[in-house]
Amino acid sequence: MVDILHRVAVEGTAPEKVYDALTTIDGLAGWWTTDTTGDAAEGGVIAFRFPPGGFDMKVLETTPGEHVRWEVVDGPEEWIGTTVDWRLRADDDWTIVMFEHQGWAEPVEFMHHCSTKWATYLMSLKGLVETGTGAPAPHDVHIAFPD
Amino acid sequence: MVDILHRVAVEGTAPEKVYDALTTIDGLAGWWTTDTTGDAAEGGVIAFRFPPGGFDMKVLETTPGEHVRWEVVDGPEEWIGTTVDWRLRADDDWTIVMFEHQGWAEPVEFMHHCSTKWATYLMSLKGLVETGTGAPAPHDVHIAFPD
Repeated sequence: MVDILHRVAVEGTAPEKVYDALTTIDGLAGWWTTDTTGDAAEGGVIAFRFPPGGFDMKVLETTPGEHVRWEVVDGPEEWIGTTVDWRLRADDDWTIVMFEHQGWAEPVEFMHHCSTKWATYLMSLKGLVETGTGAPAPHDVHIAFPD
Repeated sequence: MVDILHRVAVEGTAPEKVYDALTTIDGLAGWWTTDTTGDAAEGGVIAFRFPPGGFDMKVLETTPGEHVRWEVVDGPEEWIGTTVDWRLRADDDWTIVMFEHQGWAEPVEFMHHCSTKWATYLMSLKGLVETGTGAPAPHDVHIAFPD
């Protein structure tokens, strides 16, 4: 099993604001994909849709201001059963975001792609919370072919 | 052992142009850090310096247009002995860049940071080759504290 790891720090904000961007449909639509629907509360399922497809995430855990954990219940074969884990903590007036997309079976080329793409979406999350403007799909940063 | 994985595609270019940006001091200075010196040929050592410190990389392999491999011989403790591997291939008029920073002992927080930071530098490499302008340190994208 292999994992995608990332970390960003969000300036001038408390963990609760980042937590809101991870646990509300409006927040998620502001940095990952504008086409986000469903139930972002613990036990709910969130449907994230992108031009080429999408993911359904079951919300396994939500600890306010600290921890969010999703399980991929539908989407590309390589993603199903993997988990997406978010840990937040304050550091002075910054919020540290520790991200892990855990449990890939193999380090396939698609995993390399998703690792880079997650980094751009984490920068989108950082931008959303810092400035009010993220870069969710379909306005996302392109790292490869029009994707 | 754990690895950082990334992938970008560079538009309108042959692998040889990306290879040049990985195997010449001028090329490397155009996307990773302007303070790049040393010998980028196979067997040489390249010194990459950033405001907070730097890395010395021994060039283990250079296969024109296809493969570049470095070993970290000096730098932060967590980096020493790790390897940075680049594989290039053509796909129509794009070049696919497969990147691996291999052999981290543990998935420490610094590894999370470096994973995200590598993504921004790969986007800088893509920008340099596509447009002539990269974002090397000290003009790099900040993902956390002024870094």
